[in-house]
Parts: sequence; structure tokens; C-alpha cells
Amino acid sequence: MRPSEATTRVQSSAIRELFALLSRQDVISLAGGFPSAAAIDIEALKSAMARTMSQTMPAALLYGSVQGYEPLREMIAGRCRGFGMRLDASGIVITSGSQQGIDLIARTMVDPGDAVAVEAPTYLGAIQAFQARGANLVSVPTDNEGLHIDALETLFEQHRPKLLYLIPNFANPTGAVLSLRRRRQVLELAARHGVLIVEDDAYGELFFRDPPPPSLLALANAEERQWVVHLSSFSKVIAPGLRLAWLAAPVELMRHVHLAKQISDTHSSAISQMVGYHFLNAGSIEPALSRARQYYAKQASIMRRAVEAELGKVPLVTVAARGGMFQWIELPGVNTQALLPKAIEAGVAYVPGAPFFADRAGADSLRLSFASATAEQIGEGVRRLAGVFSGAR
Amino acid sequence: MRPSEATTRVQSSAIRELFALLSRQDVISLAGGFPSAAAIDIEALKSAMARTMSQTMPAALLYGSVQGYEPLREMIAGRCRGFGMRLDASGIVITSGSQQGIDLIARTMVDPGDAVAVEAPTYLGAIQAFQARGANLVSVPTDNEGLHIDALETLFEQHRPKLLYLIPNFANPTGAVLSLRRRRQVLELAARHGVLIVEDDAYGELFFRDPPPPSLLALANAEERQWVVHLSSFSKVIAPGLRLAWLAAPVELMRHVHLAKQISDTHSSAISQMVGYHFLNAGSIEPALSRARQYYAKQASIMRRAVEAELGKVPLVTVAARGGMFQWIELPGVNTQALLPKAIEAGVAYVPGAPFFADRAGADSLRLSFASATAEQIGEGVRRLAGVFSGAR
Repeated sequence: MRPSEATTRVQSSAIRELFALLSRQDVISLAGGFPSAAAIDIEALKSAMARTMSQTMPAALLYGSVQGYEPLREMIAGRCRGFGMRLDASGIVITSGSQQGIDLIARTMVDPGDAVAVEAPTYLGAIQAFQARGANLVSVPTDNEGLHIDALETLFEQHRPKLLYLIPNFANPTGAVLSLRRRRQVLELAARHGVLIVEDDAYGELFFRDPPPPSLLALANAEERQWVVHLSSFSKVIAPGLRLAWLAAPVELMRHVHLAKQISDTHSSAISQMVGYHFLNAGSIEPALSRARQYYAKQASIMRRAVEAELGKVPLVTVAARGGMFQWIELPGVNTQALLPKAIEAGVAYVPGAPFFADRAGADSLRLSFASATAEQIGEGVRRLAGVFSGAR
Repeated sequence: MRPSEATTRVQSSAIRELFALLSRQDVISLAGGFPSAAAIDIEALKSAMARTMSQTMPAALLYGSVQGYEPLREMIAGRCRGFGMRLDASGIVITSGSQQGIDLIARTMVDPGDAVAVEAPTYLGAIQAFQARGANLVSVPTDNEGLHIDALETLFEQHRPKLLYLIPNFANPTGAVLSLRRRRQVLELAARHGVLIVEDDAYGELFFRDPPPPSLLALANAEERQWVVHLSSFSKVIAPGLRLAWLAAPVELMRHVHLAKQISDTHSSAISQMVGYHFLNAGSIEPALSRARQYYAKQASIMRRAVEAELGKVPLVTVAARGGMFQWIELPGVNTQALLPKAIEAGVAYVPGAPFFADRAGADSLRLSFASATAEQIGEGVRRLAGVFSGAR
């Protein structure tokens, strides 16, 4: 057996390997960014399933189009127009989660050796998808307002990347929000250098108080729009188990995306698409979003207070999460990867920062998620963490 | 915009391009191999959906494991053991249709330039998935008993392929069934030459009278089993819209398959998996299979009679379909691709044979499907075809 080189060059997910350790019942996981059942409108989803059964049979059971169920795409396009994006149904492809959206773009754009620019740190699943294509990943430093524009310009000039992947809103793992000013600068730079922007907006609607600035796709002028792919997902706002997300791409790229989608899985689960359609069509998304925002805002503030109370004695850098699911922590001088086994021994799990960096920097950082633990678990988990970290210094 | 080379080397699906022409209401499509609503047990599926809502919430809405829902994998493994395959749940991954199964194996095994052996003709979606990986496709000639063993041995020696992709039962597009004797020979040859067999069994349960011989995985001895990947699907026997299929792979390959699956779409739709689980758990599959077998057997015989009555005057070679969804026809001297626009003009669509051949041979063949047209449409469609073909000679 000789597996492909592509296979052997992908680093396995640190999160996934961690899961094997988490079967121990007494370990509190602050690791995975999984939406909680408490944040999901289960009754509205059951209604959407009931309408799927009564109104869209047998279509929900048969083969559909590669692009996805057209009434669903029309509804998504209408919502997008409300956010200032110029889109119609033909510009949208339904994907099986936004992980698939990233993978379709990687397949469509990247050959082995091509440079791909990513934020440092960024989403692990994106790093893996680009690695699987043999991309040469180049990292752009970031702060709380997203990526550094000067560094981005230098990188564009030196590496001429095929694309720039970024998470502008409540980024995974840092929670950072790309400022309006930088959004405009990224658009201008990308169009000037001919670099495709892949805007992954999985978390933009999960703001706690103020919505983030408009998406790059909404801000782009006619020329810049030719350089923007927009990914979004219903995993965080309706339910992850549906594996329902979507991708908007420039016309020139679209037929390649359709072909890559066809090769990947023919089309996304029709039943998932129908449930998503009926959920949106019944107007269930706004109440579901209110519920999710309230839930995550409360969880974030519980974690924030616990971190301040318990980790306040340890020199650390954190920024309050303003949306999304994550609290990013930097502990100068502490190797968080090396400490993880001790943390699990002490009954708490987190994700070390290094795997989020394509260049494997960030050894002294870590990601906590407040998405699915209870208030008690968050308090006790952070207390256990504090014990581990203070012992490590 | 510079799309990847991988993207530009894949031939778009002739079937898919055809669909654009089929919006004309008066064209009878004998082209696509789509399961008919008439062959689907909609009531049993509604019951499975109802049980998903009442019994497996909120799990059906949340993130699940990469491998797929464990009770579903256990049920599949149990069924497989009934067919003589040595499998347990850990040896199975749920895929989003068997197209994804093929794609996962292509990703896991094939680097650009690697030789991949396929039957001539074979499934278009497999040709595309391997082309997308940059495979060097090499073709093995076939007849009604599947691929030619002598040619296969020569090919293994000359090209040393990484894998052999084949459809042993009621193949798409020919309907051929690999004989028991040849199955054993393929296993022996593959193990001896270290070639991975990818057995795509999408149609094996759709036999009209006699079941096909045991699968290659069931026939393999302990050593041979290390060289067999088995793909199967519920698309043809439960419902295609669920996008529910599965893959069994040797242990050595499995962790690579898990990683490729994670990168592709994290996991398959949880709601589809739960519906599939409840369908199987309620014992609905055997009645559904009986229904589907009866339906397709009747459709096949209607088409068979029409072909004999209408095309009998045209020199042609056909073999009666004994299972599956397709009737393969060879018309020596007729270029079926060139004639297609005239056929559509005359109000009937088929799939020309050439795209099913990796080497683009087979210009005088075509595939008809009896899966979804009505009896009247089949009769009238074949009549129209006869007019087109007799005029072409």
C-alpha cells in the first residue's frame, strides 16, 4: 500500500487526536467549538422536518442539482442582498458544511507548490485542506483588528499567492474582527495583485452586541468583486448536523466549482437542504439567531469572569470575545502543547495554539471554547487550568 | 484568476451538459440513471423521519464523528457479515454518496501521474475523480462477464497501477456482472501485484432474478483482504437524496480515509444518517428492496421489448440487463455522440458511450436507462431513437 503524498503531508487535527482522550467522563472539555443543543431551536427544526415530509416529498428523497435546491439558494441570495451583497441564486452553491466550501476552493484553485496566504493563527480545517493540495502556506500576522496590511502587501509581492484565506468575523481561533478600514485595504490590495480572497464568514451573525462591519463581498466594487469568494454556514446558526453551508464565487470560477462539487459528492443531502429551506421560509432564523446570540454572549461572559478570577495571577494576554465561540489566551513563556497531557490529567482539555499557525508558531497560546460547556463546567475547568499553569511556571 | 491544473484537466460530464438541453418538456430522457420515486418506499422513509424526530434528537442536529453514526455503522456491518464480509463498525466510514467514497480513495491513494486501472467502459464520476487527481487512467477491456483477466495481468505488469477501480455487479454503463471465476482471479492478481482493488457495489442488490456472485471482499482470503476497498450505497435502494453510502477499507488505509473525509466535509449529514439508521432498524430495507427489484425488472423488460421491436432492424449488439438501471447498446458504424443533437431534436435523449471510456473509445455505443421513464415514454423514446438511427445509416 502506497498512500498518496498528499495524504502523508497533511497534519492530523490536534483537536481530533485529543478526542480520543476525552472519553474519560471526568475531563471537562473546553476544546471543541461545537454548537450546544441549548443554542439550537429544536422545535423550529422539528417543524421544518415536518414540513419537509408534508410539502416537499418526494423531491427531498431524489437526486437534485449540483448547485443545490433552487428555492433555498434564492432565499439565501435574498438574505445576502439584505446584507449588501449583490447576489442571485445562480451565484450560490450549497455545500456540505463550509469545510467543503474551503475544500472546493482548494481543489479548484491550488496546485502543488502554489502559495496560499492565511492568517496566523487560522482555522485548522483550512490549513489541512490547503496542505492536502500541496499548497505552500504563507502566514500573515494578525492582531485584534485582523491581519496586518503592511505584512500582507509584502507577502503579496514576495510570494504572489493564488489566494488569501481569512475569517473576518470573530475568527477561529482568536475571535478577532477585521476592521472596516482594513477590509477596504485588503480588497484594494487583492484586486491590484490578482489574488483571490476567500472570505470565510462562519461566525458573523453570532455577535454579542454589535454586528461586525459589512462583509468584504458587500464592500467590494465591481472590479474587486471578481476577486472575492464568500463562504458562509448554517452550522452555527441553525444546526451543525445538517452540514448545510454555501459558497458564492465569481462567474469565472463557478463552473469549476460546480465540477469539483459534482466530483466531491454529487450534491448535498436533499433532506438537509429541504429542512434548511423550510426553516428559513418559516421565518425561524431571526428568533434562532436571537436565542443563539444571547446564549453565547452569556457563556462568553461566564468564561471571561472565570479567566479573570482564576488566571488573573498568571501573566496572560486575552481579549474579550465579542462574538463567536472562542476565547483566545496567550501565556508568554508557557508551552501549551507540552502542558496538555498534564491539563487532561487534571481534568480539563483545551486546544494548544500551535496547530492554528501554518508555521507552527504560537507555542505559548491556547484556544478555549465556551460553546458547549455548562456554567459550572466553565468555572471548574478554568480553575483546573489555573492550577496547571501556575504549577508550570 | 488561474484555476488549478487539476480543475482544467477534468472533462465535464457529458450527462450534465446534456441536462441543459433537457428542459424542453417534449424530450423523453432515457439518459440519467436516477432512481424513480416509484421505486422508493416513501412511507417507510417518512416513518424513519418521524422516528428521527422523536427518538434521536438533538443528536441528529449536532456534530457527529468523522466515521459516521456508530449504530448505523454497526447495522451496516451486521448486514455485510450476512453477505460473507468480515467487517465490524470500525472498518466502515459513512460517505456522502458513493461518489464521495471514490473521491476519498482517489485523494488517499493517487498522486499526479500515478496509473489507475479502470474498466472500459466505466462510471463517468470515477473517471472524473481520478482525472482530478492527475491519474494516468489505463483501461481494461470487458465483456458480459466483466474485465478480461489476461489483459488485466498484462496491464498490472506494464503499468504497475496503484489501484484497480471496478463495478462487479450490473455495471454502469454496461450492466455486466463479473463472473465468480474472474472475481477470484482478480483477487489473486491484485494481491500478487500489490494493487488496491476498489470494488464499487452500487447496484448489487438490484438484481432482477438471481443475485450476483459474492463480493470480492467476501471472497477474499486474509491476505487478499488487505487489498480490497469496498464501496456501497443506499442511493439506489433507500433514496438518493439522502446522499448516504459507505466505504470499507483495510486498517492500514483507514486513518488516511478518516483524514480525507474530515477535510472533505467533516462528516455526512447527521439527519440523513439518522433517517438511514431508523429505516434499517425498522426492517424496512427488505420490503424496499423487493419493491425496487420488481419495479426495475419490469422497466428493464419493457425497454428490452421496445429495443427488440424498434431497433431490431438496425444492426446492433445488446445484452439483456439482469439487474441495475441500464441497457447498453452498440451500433457498429454509428457515431452516437455526433447523432445526439439529432436525437434531442427528435425528442429523445441518451448518453453516448464515448465518455464512459477513459481512452474515449466506444464511439459507436450508447447507454439507455430504464430507471425513471414511464412505460409509454420508454416505448415512444425507443421508437424515436430507431428513427434517428435508421436515418443515420
